[in-house]
Amino acid sequence: MDVRTLDVGDLELICRHREAMFRDAGRDDDELATMTEHFRPWLLPRLSDGSYSGFVLEDQGRPIAGIGLMLIDWPPHPLHPTQDRRGYVLNVYVEPDYRRRGLARELMQLADAEFIRRGVSYCVLHATEKGRPLYQELGWSGTAEMAKVIPD
Amino acid sequence: MDVRTLDVGDLELICRHREAMFRDAGRDDDELATMTEHFRPWLLPRLSDGSYSGFVLEDQGRPIAGIGLMLIDWPPHPLHPTQDRRGYVLNVYVEPDYRRRGLARELMQLADAEFIRRGVSYCVLHATEKGRPLYQELGWSGTAEMAKVIPD
Repeated sequence: MDVRTLDVGDLELICRHREAMFRDAGRDDDELATMTEHFRPWLLPRLSDGSYSGFVLEDQGRPIAGIGLMLIDWPPHPLHPTQDRRGYVLNVYVEPDYRRRGLARELMQLADAEFIRRGVSYCVLHATEKGRPLYQELGWSGTAEMAKVIPD
Repeated sequence: MDVRTLDVGDLELICRHREAMFRDAGRDDDELATMTEHFRPWLLPRLSDGSYSGFVLEDQGRPIAGIGLMLIDWPPHPLHPTQDRRGYVLNVYVEPDYRRRGLARELMQLADAEFIRRGVSYCVLHATEKGRPLYQELGWSGTAEMAKVIPD
């Protein structure tokens, strides 16, 4: 597989990966269509200015897996007392025909290297059930994050 | 108790609450001093422009509890498909002499009301062990967030 960095021409590819990832996790198609309608214009300026970056794996020029990376503004915290940002990994996706070959692991290793290069000391992600075992194996562990849906 | 909103004069109070909260959770003093040295200049502009807001509870003019609120930029997601932000609750702290009187609950209800007022549909926080039961009671539940410390 060849590796390349994401660029602004990957807008639709990233939208497709994000939808497919959430569809695999059991999310509803209508909900995903609404999400993408709002995700696409959110992503475009961030992909253009590099605040959303990442990698694509290609098989003979065809993209078959991808990963997104961001740096998110965060208050200095005991786990990163001198830094005011956290790395964030999102939209990790491997096409069904290319699974069980270590490609997600390869993407996560690219993420680690990129965070090291940028000097980021603490990173987070949100795992699907299917992704969790790999992340655990790679040194990630659960946090104490909690969430609440606020009624309209 | 009287309730008032945070303002820029609360810079040191918020730093003190954040340190005390993490100290209660078992964090080391030296680490917390380093954190605060970096947290203070991070907080000041955000408190000034309102991107960090919140509430203080006072007993006869003396601040005895506080809560911080932020809106964080986030990609539209199945749990908030039309919104590109999440509410974030942080630095929830009640002075030891004022605990077990429902003040943390009152602060969390102020947070909910503020998020409703701002039209935010999905909120997150990171719980200490001590805080978790209250948050659960108020409708918060654990997420699939995972984290990793990146070696230097």
